[in-house]
Amino acid sequence: MPSEFEWVARYFAPLAREFAGAYDLLDDVAVISPGRGRELVVKSDVIVAGIDFPPDEPATLVARKALRVNLSDLAAKGAAARAYLVDLILPQTVDEGWIASFAEGLARDQAQYGIHLIGGDLSSTSGPITVAITAFGEVPLGKVIRRGGAQAGDSIFVTGTIGDAALGLELLGPPPSALDRASVAFLTDRYRLPQPRVILGPHLIGIATASLDISDGLVADLRHLCSVSRLSARIAADRVPLSPAARRAIGADPRRLAVALTGGDDYEILFTANPTATTRIRELSEALRTVVTPIGHMTAPAAADGRPDVTVLDAGGRRLQFAAEGWTHF
Amino acid sequence: MPSEFEWVARYFAPLAREFAGAYDLLDDVAVISPGRGRELVVKSDVIVAGIDFPPDEPATLVARKALRVNLSDLAAKGAAARAYLVDLILPQTVDEGWIASFAEGLARDQAQYGIHLIGGDLSSTSGPITVAITAFGEVPLGKVIRRGGAQAGDSIFVTGTIGDAALGLELLGPPPSALDRASVAFLTDRYRLPQPRVILGPHLIGIATASLDISDGLVADLRHLCSVSRLSARIAADRVPLSPAARRAIGADPRRLAVALTGGDDYEILFTANPTATTRIRELSEALRTVVTPIGHMTAPAAADGRPDVTVLDAGGRRLQFAAEGWTHF
Repeated sequence: MPSEFEWVARYFAPLAREFAGAYDLLDDVAVISPGRGRELVVKSDVIVAGIDFPPDEPATLVARKALRVNLSDLAAKGAAARAYLVDLILPQTVDEGWIASFAEGLARDQAQYGIHLIGGDLSSTSGPITVAITAFGEVPLGKVIRRGGAQAGDSIFVTGTIGDAALGLELLGPPPSALDRASVAFLTDRYRLPQPRVILGPHLIGIATASLDISDGLVADLRHLCSVSRLSARIAADRVPLSPAARRAIGADPRRLAVALTGGDDYEILFTANPTATTRIRELSEALRTVVTPIGHMTAPAAADGRPDVTVLDAGGRRLQFAAEGWTHF
Repeated sequence: MPSEFEWVARYFAPLAREFAGAYDLLDDVAVISPGRGRELVVKSDVIVAGIDFPPDEPATLVARKALRVNLSDLAAKGAAARAYLVDLILPQTVDEGWIASFAEGLARDQAQYGIHLIGGDLSSTSGPITVAITAFGEVPLGKVIRRGGAQAGDSIFVTGTIGDAALGLELLGPPPSALDRASVAFLTDRYRLPQPRVILGPHLIGIATASLDISDGLVADLRHLCSVSRLSARIAADRVPLSPAARRAIGADPRRLAVALTGGDDYEILFTANPTATTRIRELSEALRTVVTPIGHMTAPAAADGRPDVTVLDAGGRRLQFAAEGWTHF
């Protein structure tokens, strides 16, 4: 069995070949600097087997999910992704085939997103497979799109469709659901392999007043945006974009609407913009073939305690209540 | 029990207060850029309970070790540390006291090293406590000290003393050793809390031809330096600097010399320099109160297969052989 150094040389060094500051992974550090007039944006996110992905998930998908959850954050902040570090923390039972597949997954996404591995660490654990990725992107100086810039009256937009991944997670295991197999496959794929909105993200600079990616759940992440922007928000449940498969899943069990709105793992962008930007957003959406849907608007801060009021109304104008608004680890 | 968001606000956001691009940890990303004429150096390193530190280690020490193993890498490359991200992957049984102590450990080292927390992730696991830190430093453009620049004839130097940590690890558990308690305490402390050579490191720019920090073990890391520099090396075991405690430990059991030379976790700097730099290195060593010791020299590549020959001679000029040259994870 090869040592960790041979694994790095065989499977990971080729992924670093085109980035000069990665030194072919033959050194202890990498060197990176933003282009002229730009600054670096960094984000680190961890995924753990049994929590963020099924323990028996193919290694290619583990690699791509680990990478994409970070690319999604960068995109939501307007940053163009450039490079990443991988900390790979593995049980000693992992074999070379797993490593090879993991690297293959990274290679596929590097080709898709134009990014490069520049370093990381390979470590053993008595626990589950754990992957921590730190991704580096770039924005023009001072232009990163923050969570806190929303204004009262701003429209609230989301990209793509919401709830697919959370419904997919619910449908992953047995018992077999009443849902048609194509819908199940679509929804579980949306859970297993996020589609970060990397094309749209950088175009939101100068348009979005606040932005983040939806990972904890639509309602919870909207509350995060509200908290930092010190505002409240009101959205209409029936304007939240749902895929045909999600509609069928919710049709089969209406309680699943709450799963869709609060379940998380969407990796879509939630952003706010002045209503005067709506036409420009529609044009962008068409030009970039990325669905963008207005779902509500920001309102003045409600509560005296400063806690934002996130109101979700159903088609009849009734306020929906949720047992939990989104995912938390603890 | 507070949620992860409250933990971040209470314990971690104060650590980010003085770094503008960390946005008080209220955003999804951090923004960082090197100063004018400088570039960023990044390094990520993971420590896992039961492998890199004892499972019952106090959280303050876990935090400080996780940080320092990265600072050590930056120092060895000539970089001045500026900021770091923490991915904290914790069993759900961890309580708020643990988190508070962990943050306290980070706070102490931030004060000591002048660095700032700028982001990270808090995640749960069914496995052991795992801490992945990515550290950011700066060097003047193009000046990072690589592994691969050593020349045949260069002298080989190490900072501090070698082997303390590996001997300390051996002495951590029962049975009680024959060694005096003060020596045991000194050696185990050297294992538990590395002392990265952050003061000396940046001064090695322009002096060291190649450099790395010793984490896997003196012999193994010297071999790494040789591999990338495409040279061999010869060092004298009796010139390798040992602490009084290490000398006593080896005196009590001579087999421990191999532990000291190959055990790792030293977090001292191993570097090469032209012999003409020796006086300047001695002056630096005195000015910065950091012991630096010449232990051998680089030689032309030996083997036809390109594998570097790392020769360790004892006081009688006999070649020492080691069962294993250093730590590997797999």
